Amino acid sequence: MWCHSCREEYDEEDAGTCKECYEEASETEEELKREIEDLKAKVAFLRLSSPLDPHLPHTSSASADLLLHAASDSQEASASSPAISRSPVFKAMLENEMAESRSGMIKIFDVSYDVLRSFIHYLYTADVLLDEQMACNLLILAEKYQVKHLKAFCEKFMTSKVNNENAIASFAFAHQHNAKQLIEASLSLIMDNMATLTQREEYKELLEKDPRLVVHIYETYLARQVNTAAKKLTFK
Amino acid sequence: MWCHSCREEYDEEDAGTCKECYEEASETEEELKREIEDLKAKVAFLRLSSPLDPHLPHTSSASADLLLHAASDSQEASASSPAISRSPVFKAMLENEMAESRSGMIKIFDVSYDVLRSFIHYLYTADVLLDEQMACNLLILAEKYQVKHLKAFCEKFMTSKVNNENAIASFAFAHQHNAKQLIEASLSLIMDNMATLTQREEYKELLEKDPRLVVHIYETYLARQVNTAAKKLTFK
Repeated sequence: MWCHSCREEYDEEDAGTCKECYEEASETEEELKREIEDLKAKVAFLRLSSPLDPHLPHTSSASADLLLHAASDSQEASASSPAISRSPVFKAMLENEMAESRSGMIKIFDVSYDVLRSFIHYLYTADVLLDEQMACNLLILAEKYQVKHLKAFCEKFMTSKVNNENAIASFAFAHQHNAKQLIEASLSLIMDNMATLTQREEYKELLEKDPRLVVHIYETYLARQVNTAAKKLTFK
Repeated sequence: MWCHSCREEYDEEDAGTCKECYEEASETEEELKREIEDLKAKVAFLRLSSPLDPHLPHTSSASADLLLHAASDSQEASASSPAISRSPVFKAMLENEMAESRSGMIKIFDVSYDVLRSFIHYLYTADVLLDEQMACNLLILAEKYQVKHLKAFCEKFMTSKVNNENAIASFAFAHQHNAKQLIEASLSLIMDNMATLTQREEYKELLEKDPRLVVHIYETYLARQVNTAAKKLTFK
């Protein structure tokens, strides 16, 4: 008998697991490793830059609070500098004393107070409860203020929610915000349903709004067909 | 054949791994799970308490810096409140405006500037490079200022370094600072070398300094012997 793991031959009495359990264990290991990567990224995000770290550039010790103002419903939330500094954009504002930060208030347009609250909460804790709308809104904010960890978090959530119904909208959104993982996932679902593509309402909307994206869909489709044909020829 | 994992019978052709690889995989899984637990604890330690979290008591937004003063070599290091607040003791000082914090300076006795620097660095980053002496010093500081995560980190490191040479000293240290994991590890090594116990220099020192701890060693030894004898009787 041959071991699936070390690929060496062994006797019956040295058998460990059945094939099913071996595959399950391999999957579990992969999942655990992914979880470890996620947690490591979270730790890196949450670390404060230590004033005593010789490897880090010395940052100003100014620890003023900032008032973030949600322009769409005129409500404000305050946040302190260590959390705020997790956005390189805010950090630069604080350090360079731009007009906005000098006043101690940053106006954030096109965002509701609810979304702003969740955004600030994430800067403190690396934690937020998402639904699809919130993930969408936070991804936009995260991109604007360069909070990579939050952007990746939202993108992962949205990727897990892509389905035949929302694939076209997700694809357009992902393109606009340069979310590669989401582009791939939605594009792959669109490819599976090319036969009905042109009948869909969202297709017509996209064609109206951004025809170049529609071209991108067809180009991808064509490339795959060419690819598949080439493979078939190779195997003949 | 019987699968070691699901305990069910299977055919030869459904064999997954050999026994050796199965055992290795089980160990790997355990290790990965432990790493995940460690990382989760780190994330919990590094999270800042968000002013917007409805589940957390609202903390004062006072974000003053504190000057920590290493009394033994009269050097100071400043630290900002979010990092400092990871010690409940410092946090209480900040919030209750004790005499020490009102002055903006906390004197820390019996500690060198080097150790203080590492301590502060840990409060910012949950990261520190340990050797045995540093682990010892930081564990004491971590206990005093209730930084549980750092105490556990140092204790784990020290436990990994216990050997026949330092077992008695480790046992005494662990007792003094209520480090249960380290107590067990060192006691277990002492039990393995009872024959030469009384000849050791550290034994004589301990007997001089804290005879009750020596009694504790003998009590544990006796209890184990009684236990082993009882087991032998049962199996007769």
